[in-house]
Parts: sequence; structure tokens; C-alpha cells
Amino acid sequence: MSRLGPTVAARVRKVREGRSLDAEDILATEEPLEIRLATTEDGQEVVRSLAVTMRTPGNDFELAVGFLYGEGIVRGKRDVDRVVYSSTPIVEQEFNIVSVHLKEGVAYVPDLVERHFYTTSACGVCGKTSLEAVKVRGAKPIPRDRLRVDGRVISSLPERLRESQEVFSATGGLHAAGLFDARGRLESVREDVGRHNAVDKLVGQQVLTDRVPLHDSILAVSGRASFEILQKAAVAGIPMVVAVGAPSNLAVDLAKQFGITLVGFARGSTFNMYTEPHRVVNTSARKSR
Amino acid sequence: MSRLGPTVAARVRKVREGRSLDAEDILATEEPLEIRLATTEDGQEVVRSLAVTMRTPGNDFELAVGFLYGEGIVRGKRDVDRVVYSSTPIVEQEFNIVSVHLKEGVAYVPDLVERHFYTTSACGVCGKTSLEAVKVRGAKPIPRDRLRVDGRVISSLPERLRESQEVFSATGGLHAAGLFDARGRLESVREDVGRHNAVDKLVGQQVLTDRVPLHDSILAVSGRASFEILQKAAVAGIPMVVAVGAPSNLAVDLAKQFGITLVGFARGSTFNMYTEPHRVVNTSARKSR
Repeated sequence: MSRLGPTVAARVRKVREGRSLDAEDILATEEPLEIRLATTEDGQEVVRSLAVTMRTPGNDFELAVGFLYGEGIVRGKRDVDRVVYSSTPIVEQEFNIVSVHLKEGVAYVPDLVERHFYTTSACGVCGKTSLEAVKVRGAKPIPRDRLRVDGRVISSLPERLRESQEVFSATGGLHAAGLFDARGRLESVREDVGRHNAVDKLVGQQVLTDRVPLHDSILAVSGRASFEILQKAAVAGIPMVVAVGAPSNLAVDLAKQFGITLVGFARGSTFNMYTEPHRVVNTSARKSR
Repeated sequence: MSRLGPTVAARVRKVREGRSLDAEDILATEEPLEIRLATTEDGQEVVRSLAVTMRTPGNDFELAVGFLYGEGIVRGKRDVDRVVYSSTPIVEQEFNIVSVHLKEGVAYVPDLVERHFYTTSACGVCGKTSLEAVKVRGAKPIPRDRLRVDGRVISSLPERLRESQEVFSATGGLHAAGLFDARGRLESVREDVGRHNAVDKLVGQQVLTDRVPLHDSILAVSGRASFEILQKAAVAGIPMVVAVGAPSNLAVDLAKQFGITLVGFARGSTFNMYTEPHRVVNTSARKSR
């Protein structure tokens, strides 16, 4: 539910080879979402405004819950009492505020996260290292010998992800995150103008349907593999991340530390394995000669 | 200066047509940067930690100043006394904390920005609309009749931006933001794993060399045009933004409100003008027939 849908129509003047033409275009919607956390403390309801993110409307409850899960604030469906839209007198912001109510007795420890008021979800400086911060968020070891994926399945994921993107094909403007099983079957896909939001929506859906940790799934993302993407995967227990784009050094470090198989530059029949290649099978070593 | 450079070497197992080969790869570096603001209040120095962003090391002082400028906290070079790296006992985080010291007498009003501790720079909910929030940050009207750009110049910008990217060509993993004059000459370019950081570095450089507002410049970005990119352009007084990717609806709304020419999908000789096309010349209207 949203005041605006995931796309809106707009007028555009298109220029092609020096000539212009007025036309109709479809834009990806971008709106702010304020995420609030409501807890019960000493019998009193306490509501805190935790974050504002620019997102594509749709799957807002999943986004809010996925965000809180990635930060270690929600540890599973069992912690969530209900998720609701909050009212605001500003018409433009209707359906742009989501409140996640935790069950009575579920504690919220503000000093884990309330260090900065502007920040990404990677609060790594101020007294602990980036990788330690991920452990604090509740990431647990991922089973080493459970998931095995054929190299041909990995090669097929980017195209399957792309085919499953509904809004992208209309606007050309969205990131996608998809969850696949070991045989390459799509379990779920989410889109957003923000790469991290797409992953939060996907993970939030799994949290709300009580499917985490995701020890048997592959996370495929349409863009690059950043530290924050790997952080969200680690907290959700995902053993393999496949990115169409490049990984950063810190994404590789985090994948190594948590035993996640990180694949980058997945394009057609070629891809790069940066960590834990043992989970990928049927990729014979090339003979030297 | 940084503990790590903008790229680091890594081992990778490359898979090509089902065969694997161990190789050396180059990764874009991603490290946290904590931005601190130091002010003098009643003769006492007060230091606040304002933000942590994941960034590519390099041009850190520009990034910090550009970020604070985009938020309306620094209004120009005149507000900045000095910018320094702060020490930390954690070796891993050396050179990951930058403190911007404001001149004595320059006020900092926390309640403009201290609404949330997780947030993007688009704090639009909580009592005001997104577009009003931009005005609060100090964006002033942009001259309507000053900049004129030939359509062929716009067509040339994406390739010139790409050619000027040093780190991208090594890693395939970075966003770029470039500043061009009306004739398409590159004035400056900055790269980062984060799209917004690349713009902050670029604008911060212009602030530190006392060149804002940028009423005669074009901002070209390698990715999509989001609300936040347009927000930073509006505060810097930039009259034209050219994006290789798609704009969002809110980016178009902001461009309209502040009189910025917004061009999207700039690829070869084709591009789309979403707002204020009068600044683009030599694009004859196609005859209907």
C-alpha cells in the first residue's frame, strides 16, 4: 500500500540523433520511508524513530522488518508482535511511516546502534572494527558442508533474476535481489531503487514467514557486492552470494570471515569466485600446458 | 592518505565456460569513514560524530566537507577552519576518521539534522516534506538563463566521464561523478564505491577551493539520478545534471522545483530531458507527419 505505486508516468523530451520528440515515460518511484520501533517498557509503549530510507514503495513491512533484522534488533518472527502504517497529517507522506511493534518482553538495547544520527548500517569505527560490528549484530557461523551448487546453475542466475524483475523492465531503474535454491529455482525476488533495500525486503519477507536462517539459499544481486550486502547475508545465515557486479575488498574480507561463498562478475558462462569455492561444483580446473 | 589505497590485490578463481583458473584480481577498496564536526562553543571545543559512510579511500577531506555542505552545515570555505585525520587506537581504522573544524563563531544547529540516527541524507518525513527539507538545507534559486549546452556536448559526456575514471578501469567497481563546463570540458572527476560519496567528493573539492555555487557547471553521474543526487546538486547551485541511468520520480520533482535541467539515460547520441529542456540547444524538434 502506498500513496504512489512502484512507478509513475511522466512527460519527457527524448533526443535521438539531434532531434527531439515529446513522449510519455515511466519512472521508478522513490519515496522516503521512516522506520519506527515500538517496544513495551515497564508496561508503557515506547516508540522510537530509527531510520529514514529512500525506497520504492511496496513491501514496506518486509523492508522495515528486514532492516531491523539486519541490524540485530529483530532476531526472528518470534520478536515481532505486529507491523502497521502510522498516520501523519502530511498528505504527501501518507503510507511513508512504518512502525514495527516488538512483543512484550523483547528488549531493545539502543547503545548498540545509536552512535550516529547519519550513518549507513555499517557503524564500524568508534571503538570496534567493522567485522566485529557484524558479529555483534548476531551473525552466527554458516554450515560449511550443506549447500552445493553446480557452476551452470550460477551462470543461469543473473538472467533468471533479470527476467523476474517486473518494474525494471518498465523503468530501467531498479536494483533486484533474488533468493534461489541450490538448483537455481527462484524462491523470491524484490526490487528497489536502493540496493540494500532490495535485500532488506527479501530478507524481511523470509523473517515474517519464519524461514530464517537461510542455510540452503543463494542470494543473487543485480549490482555490486558491498560490505553491507554481505553483512545482511551473514546475519541471515546465507551461505552464497552471487553478484552481477564487482565485490569490494571489505565484502571479500567479511565473506572469508563468515565462510560465505562470494561470486562476482556473474555474466553468462563466466564468473569469479572470491571465497569458499568448495560450494561450487562441476567447474573443472583448467589444465596448464 | 589511507591505510589502504583505492584498490587492493586479491586472489580469485575465475570460471570460464565451465573451467576454472586461479588468478590475481584487483578489488575496489571499501572502508568506513567517520565524519566528525568540531565547533567552538563558549570558548570550548565540542566534537560530534555525525556520520559513518562506507567509502573508497582517497579525497577524504573533500568527502567530509562535501557531505557537510550538502547537509547545509558548512555553507562555504569561509566556514571551515581546518580538516584533519583523527587518531584511533585501532590500527585497522587508521585514517578512517576525519574531523572538520568550523571557524570560531560558526554555529551548528543540531536539530536540523539530529532527527534519526540511521538515515540517508533525505530526512523527509517527521514534520516536513522531502522538498521542504532541501530548502531548509540552504538551496537557493538557480539562474535560469545563464547556462546553455549543445545537445552534442551532452551526448559526449558519458564517454568522457568513463575515460576519466582511473580506478574503474582497474576494478570495474566504482561510481563516478564529473563536473564539466558548457563546452564539455572536464573540470574535475571523483570516484567512489558509493554514488553519493562520489558527488560529495566532487562538491567538497569545489567548496574547499571556494568555487561554489556552481552556476556554470554540469554534473554528470555514471549511475541513476536519485533524490539525493539532485539534492546535493541543488545545494551546490548546479543547473544541469546528466545521468547515464534512470531518474526517479522524486529526482524529477526536485529538479522541477529548483529549476535544474535533468537529463537521464544519456547513452551515445540519445538522451532524455525530464525538466527545463531550454538549457539544451541544437536539438531540433522532430516534425510530426
